[in-house]
Amino acid sequence: MESRVKDLSLAEKGREQLYWAERNMPVLLEIRRRFEREKPLAGQTVAACLHVTKETGVLVRTLAAGGARVVVIPSNPLSTQDEVAAALAQEGIHVYAWRGMSERDYYNAIGFALSFQPTVTLDDGADLTSTIHKLRHGIRDKTLDYVMETAGSVDAEKLVAGLRGGTEETTTGVLRLRALKSAGKLLYPIIAVNESYTKYLFDNRYGTGQSTWDGVLRATNLLIAGKNVVVAGYGWVGRGIAMRARGLGARRVIVVEVDPVRALEAVFDGFEVMPMDEAAKVGDIFITATGNIRAINLGHIFKMKDGAVLANAGHFNVEIDVAGLERVAVAKRQIRQYLEEYTLPNGRRVYLIGEGRLVNLVAAEGHPSEVMDLSFANQALAAEYVVKNKLAIDVYKLPDELDREVARLKLKTMGIEIEELTEEQRQYLTSWELGT
Amino acid sequence: MESRVKDLSLAEKGREQLYWAERNMPVLLEIRRRFEREKPLAGQTVAACLHVTKETGVLVRTLAAGGARVVVIPSNPLSTQDEVAAALAQEGIHVYAWRGMSERDYYNAIGFALSFQPTVTLDDGADLTSTIHKLRHGIRDKTLDYVMETAGSVDAEKLVAGLRGGTEETTTGVLRLRALKSAGKLLYPIIAVNESYTKYLFDNRYGTGQSTWDGVLRATNLLIAGKNVVVAGYGWVGRGIAMRARGLGARRVIVVEVDPVRALEAVFDGFEVMPMDEAAKVGDIFITATGNIRAINLGHIFKMKDGAVLANAGHFNVEIDVAGLERVAVAKRQIRQYLEEYTLPNGRRVYLIGEGRLVNLVAAEGHPSEVMDLSFANQALAAEYVVKNKLAIDVYKLPDELDREVARLKLKTMGIEIEELTEEQRQYLTSWELGT
Amino acid sequence: MESRVKDLSLAEKGREQLYWAERNMPVLLEIRRRFEREKPLAGQTVAACLHVTKETGVLVRTLAAGGARVVVIPSNPLSTQDEVAAALAQEGIHVYAWRGMSERDYYNAIGFALSFQPTVTLDDGADLTSTIHKLRHGIRDKTLDYVMETAGSVDAEKLVAGLRGGTEETTTGVLRLRALKSAGKLLYPIIAVNESYTKYLFDNRYGTGQSTWDGVLRATNLLIAGKNVVVAGYGWVGRGIAMRARGLGARRVIVVEVDPVRALEAVFDGFEVMPMDEAAKVGDIFITATGNIRAINLGHIFKMKDGAVLANAGHFNVEIDVAGLERVAVAKRQIRQYLEEYTLPNGRRVYLIGEGRLVNLVAAEGHPSEVMDLSFANQALAAEYVVKNKLAIDVYKLPDELDREVARLKLKTMGIEIEELTEEQRQYLTSWELGT
Amino acid sequence: MESRVKDLSLAEKGREQLYWAERNMPVLLEIRRRFEREKPLAGQTVAACLHVTKETGVLVRTLAAGGARVVVIPSNPLSTQDEVAAALAQEGIHVYAWRGMSERDYYNAIGFALSFQPTVTLDDGADLTSTIHKLRHGIRDKTLDYVMETAGSVDAEKLVAGLRGGTEETTTGVLRLRALKSAGKLLYPIIAVNESYTKYLFDNRYGTGQSTWDGVLRATNLLIAGKNVVVAGYGWVGRGIAMRARGLGARRVIVVEVDPVRALEAVFDGFEVMPMDEAAKVGDIFITATGNIRAINLGHIFKMKDGAVLANAGHFNVEIDVAGLERVAVAKRQIRQYLEEYTLPNGRRVYLIGEGRLVNLVAAEGHPSEVMDLSFANQALAAEYVVKNKLAIDVYKLPDELDREVARLKLKTMGIEIEELTEEQRQYLTSWELGT
Repeated sequence: MESRVKDLSLAEKGREQLYWAERNMPVLLEIRRRFEREKPLAGQTVAACLHVTKETGVLVRTLAAGGARVVVIPSNPLSTQDEVAAALAQEGIHVYAWRGMSERDYYNAIGFALSFQPTVTLDDGADLTSTIHKLRHGIRDKTLDYVMETAGSVDAEKLVAGLRGGTEETTTGVLRLRALKSAGKLLYPIIAVNESYTKYLFDNRYGTGQSTWDGVLRATNLLIAGKNVVVAGYGWVGRGIAMRARGLGARRVIVVEVDPVRALEAVFDGFEVMPMDEAAKVGDIFITATGNIRAINLGHIFKMKDGAVLANAGHFNVEIDVAGLERVAVAKRQIRQYLEEYTLPNGRRVYLIGEGRLVNLVAAEGHPSEVMDLSFANQALAAEYVVKNKLAIDVYKLPDELDREVARLKLKTMGIEIEELTEEQRQYLTSWELGT
Repeated sequence: MESRVKDLSLAEKGREQLYWAERNMPVLLEIRRRFEREKPLAGQTVAACLHVTKETGVLVRTLAAGGARVVVIPSNPLSTQDEVAAALAQEGIHVYAWRGMSERDYYNAIGFALSFQPTVTLDDGADLTSTIHKLRHGIRDKTLDYVMETAGSVDAEKLVAGLRGGTEETTTGVLRLRALKSAGKLLYPIIAVNESYTKYLFDNRYGTGQSTWDGVLRATNLLIAGKNVVVAGYGWVGRGIAMRARGLGARRVIVVEVDPVRALEAVFDGFEVMPMDEAAKVGDIFITATGNIRAINLGHIFKMKDGAVLANAGHFNVEIDVAGLERVAVAKRQIRQYLEEYTLPNGRRVYLIGEGRLVNLVAAEGHPSEVMDLSFANQALAAEYVVKNKLAIDVYKLPDELDREVARLKLKTMGIEIEELTEEQRQYLTSWELGT
Repeated sequence: MESRVKDLSLAEKGREQLYWAERNMPVLLEIRRRFEREKPLAGQTVAACLHVTKETGVLVRTLAAGGARVVVIPSNPLSTQDEVAAALAQEGIHVYAWRGMSERDYYNAIGFALSFQPTVTLDDGADLTSTIHKLRHGIRDKTLDYVMETAGSVDAEKLVAGLRGGTEETTTGVLRLRALKSAGKLLYPIIAVNESYTKYLFDNRYGTGQSTWDGVLRATNLLIAGKNVVVAGYGWVGRGIAMRARGLGARRVIVVEVDPVRALEAVFDGFEVMPMDEAAKVGDIFITATGNIRAINLGHIFKMKDGAVLANAGHFNVEIDVAGLERVAVAKRQIRQYLEEYTLPNGRRVYLIGEGRLVNLVAAEGHPSEVMDLSFANQALAAEYVVKNKLAIDVYKLPDELDREVARLKLKTMGIEIEELTEEQRQYLTSWELGT
Repeated sequence: MESRVKDLSLAEKGREQLYWAERNMPVLLEIRRRFEREKPLAGQTVAACLHVTKETGVLVRTLAAGGARVVVIPSNPLSTQDEVAAALAQEGIHVYAWRGMSERDYYNAIGFALSFQPTVTLDDGADLTSTIHKLRHGIRDKTLDYVMETAGSVDAEKLVAGLRGGTEETTTGVLRLRALKSAGKLLYPIIAVNESYTKYLFDNRYGTGQSTWDGVLRATNLLIAGKNVVVAGYGWVGRGIAMRARGLGARRVIVVEVDPVRALEAVFDGFEVMPMDEAAKVGDIFITATGNIRAINLGHIFKMKDGAVLANAGHFNVEIDVAGLERVAVAKRQIRQYLEEYTLPNGRRVYLIGEGRLVNLVAAEGHPSEVMDLSFANQALAAEYVVKNKLAIDVYKLPDELDREVARLKLKTMGIEIEELTEEQRQYLTSWELGT
């Protein structure tokens, strides 16, 4: 099967979107120009399990320009932009993606990717990578049954042997891969793209920071000025969300955090810190970004004010106890697109955005292209790096020099010049004898 | 010699200042209570080469409470608070410090410290540690001559043999020590206190961020709103200064930086980035925080507008080319305390704060006690750590657990409660099989 | 005729929207509860010529609860939400409104309203009020011909005699009414709702400030962090936009303003100020809010960088010279919904949002309900006020006490308590003899 | 008597300060150059009852340059900069001022001023103006007894007859004068300088906003980041203080306000609002700016946390109940200059800055010169205006054109160019025929 998308006639619309994304992804375009000349991925099959957005499309075109055969599947059942999927399929990319996949469709997509015997995996949340590990370690469950429906006669041993390496985009995914590594079960080298400065310092903070609020506004049209906002988690995502909440005029910005150093940093950054049990009582809008399960549980929800709005900005839809909410609610109805009202037994109503899935991808358009330009420049360089270098099986950070190269390209494309060290200054930095 | 200070009759005034500092350093007080019980430093001689401020006084009292004999000398010739020095001397601490020391006095103080045969060194800028290294490696210069005037018959080999370890407070100092380590010349283990999160994330950013502006305001009484502020260096100090410049209403906040990743972060944080050659033309107030030499050189100064104000927030007074300025100025006069006007050959006047020395220590009172509480809690725990553990010769970061302990104590003393992980959440964080 | 709307079957969808709006308009609901008890509008016929949106629907229901017979017609041919019109019609309100009316339809609607012999008029732009004046003063034109097609046998003298008063929402409308007053031709008392603090201090600044950026994000999905934003006009709208640009992380926020006092305020608020000729060269995103014509003209557009984005937040689509742009562009194409690319003769491309029409209404959803709650609470109280008081013929500001009452209700519904003056304090404020 | 100051030998030091102030007051210098040519105040005696600071010195020199005989007395017993007083006295100005005056000294100074039979009064808090009114209306009290000790044989009727007009700098003062006007007792025309945009929009907000924090930092050296700050009053002063508290990283910024419209504005500006009774329990730092008595009373103080810091930014020292605090405290001691510790019967300690007097003048240097440049440019133009125009007895705002002139001069001296209206735009703004 070549591709399976919603509707190929959407391709023209998708090409327009890709055009606009490319206008805002100059770093990736610069890399693409080099890839076209050097063909560093010639002979490789790259399986990209990513949110199928216009920005991913620009990355995919870059990988293809580098000589790779590219297979694209979604990393989330709800985040595919069908127009982009159509445009890529028409350009000869192997795509298996549409918005609103069932769980079965979703794992069928992974099977589809595996049927191509990829040599490089690009992952966002580690679902593709985990599946390969389950397959090889013989852990059979329902999801794997779905995978096998489309994978064809895949030989797990041969598949793993052929893998040059993979990349992982998210913190959540890297946590899972390090757990595998610790358990002695990791099967091939992985570049933790999220540990590149030009990725995690930028897309989590500035990208999610903005696009989360974009999603909240589109879903609710609420005024943020004067509201009490509760942010669960003060990692890079959480601090981006908190920073923009303040920038939009929120009255109280309350951070819920388990790590004392991060909690203290939140305090000194000018935010309130308290446990969710307390925050639940005062919040108007709650946003989770913990990478953990049930950051908002039923106990918290029962304490909330009538009218509270809940959204999740973390990778998986486990941070808010949606299942619990479904179970206890005495009534539920859709209010607006992506906004559902649950009436609790205590008579209060809470509003859940996008079923508790990634709010910026469900209710808005994900990260702006400009930050994905940085993240995907890292992805492209990481794919090239695992192909060019024979790495031992481990989880790696991309070399600092590549990281700085991405920053340098970005500044250059923005027309920004930076300071250069003088020779005297370079020497000074490495000396130890100079005194007061 | 027991102590040498400006005037012992200032002691009462010093005790008042220590009282106020202690009110705002609850973490250190908590550690002091434990030290009083456990006496972990019994039998040790601690030489503390630090800015002799009220906060340092609280640390010194804590070390003494832990059983140590403590010697205090300044880490900067201009930063000693004479009242505090008097109060400490009166309490039986060995102090050799006064405000406005000559270069000779300054190195005499180091000699004084060495005469006590310290077993632990606490350093801020690595002048004490460097001196020990010069002494042992036989590098003789003028400063060492001064040291020997007061050191007595110090046996360098025996001195080094007796050293359990040291600590270093600043980035600048750690750079020097890592250079020593690289050169294979480091003589004893050092804890880079600056690498503790609860130190570098807090005192550089929030402490220097605020106190630098406090210094600028005291020295100039200028209105920051509407001004163009140029910050050289976007490390933790620089970003604190830039953040507060914005918070005080600066019109343009321009960052000058050599590292592309940091420069890009400055851009996304909402600051302008350009080389100093360009920034020089538009700035009203210039503040250096690069840890490097001549971040502002004569070429830059000649491009500045009439009325430009220059200050340094970096550890050493090398960041602005003060010597060059002295050389070329056609006139110089003092305008206010800590503010000197230089008339350039081009007729323009620039204003230098505190001779280009650390603006927050010279023109204000250094870091507020609350941040020094964190930094010095790390110093106290580091001193205990090097005594309790036999470390190999290297530069270390304090263990994360101690770091978190400092944050936990701080939050507790502020009356702030944080979230706790549930057992389910703890497990989730270590699992890898959960999927989308 | 009872009502004329697009499609009555949209009513259910409209009720959902009204439900969500009511959740966020608690002040109006509180007033409605009182109106239900007191029926202050019993016997009155209110003709409301407003944008037919979900928020207007909540106002209309409030007036009806107060005992009025309500007739709803649009104040703009393009702004009607057909679902809301349907829902209101089904509830027994007399509605004559659909999206995309012709000029004839639009004035037919006014005639429809007049056929009910209104005793109170609510207006937004003064089209209804002007028509009544033309009718009475015998000024016949094409629009009046349209009006007469649906007005039935209206007796102008009797109509005017029956009018208790009217309200006007916009500055533009108030200007027209004051001109009538000056000419001695005003026929009945009018409350200028826009002069209430709880209207103009809030909806222009916080409402447009947020919704303008909501519109820009929906139209472009650009990252604001790191961008240079140019805001033309520093009135309440402009300062809201500039404030939020900073809050979203813009690198440079440049204000273009003709009034020196406002310009100076922008400078002290931490923004750059320069003429558009200079700003044109450095801006990435341009937003106009001047209330004036050609704030961005062709000369400015030719100076812009490739990729510049243009949007208008002012009432009329005259602030950007769209006609000029259409004339000189060598190519034009739609990139996304509400975003068009123009290629200039110099090869650069600029991007225009929503044809230069009000960006927050075209590309987003206009003001959030929370700010309309304040504006329309003023409308409801103004309608009650003209009925309860026999006012002389003039243009009035709502009494301060009612203004404060709106603020008081808003705070109460947000659960916020404020300070009360003590008797001693009340006296102090009116005394003049107390000295230093 | 010519002058009475602390020490004439401080004059050289004072001249240095005046030099620095003049560098930062270019608008006043520009006006001075015109005054020198035009001598608009020739033959007038100006009594200036102002804080005797370096900025006032620049104003005084400007008035003298305009041909006036100038008498300078303080508007606060603690705010005189003795060096400046000395310098002015040496230049032939009649000065009666020193830091730390008793109540008797303070009113003696007013008597001194009256002995010169002023024709114009410049006032800051209306003490001089009130005294003249008491004198003429025959209201005799203790303060008037002090006044008479130095006034000589002053004929109240003749004095008032000779007065061309006066100016008043503060909101508080204007309140008192409007009360006099309402009571039909105002005796001569007053320009409420505080109602000029270039005064009240700037010095209250940006000047006091910054200098209040400057005062708090000098008095306490506390870290603002992480603190809970309570601001009483959300007028222009209060909003400046709240804005800068946020800019310095305060955790919670809580506004206490009696007016619901202002309270609502604070909420939408992103601040918490609550009554002082609630705020008292959570605040770390309290600052009053209400213009009212006992904004912080004993009941509030008893609810405060151990360690709370209190300061006043309002004109009079009545906003904090200092007398009550003195009465109930079980112990009191000075901790630092301008900082006193009170131990309450409940064992908690609160810290009062500068005896509850104007914190920015007592503990810092008052407004930066740049904002006083605007305020005093208005004062100078107002003095000229009352001399040139024969005004009826009332309280006036300075004409808008003079206001804009001040802004224009300021922008020019900052090198900032603003936009100019085109002819087309000018016409558009005055047209009324354009419709929907």
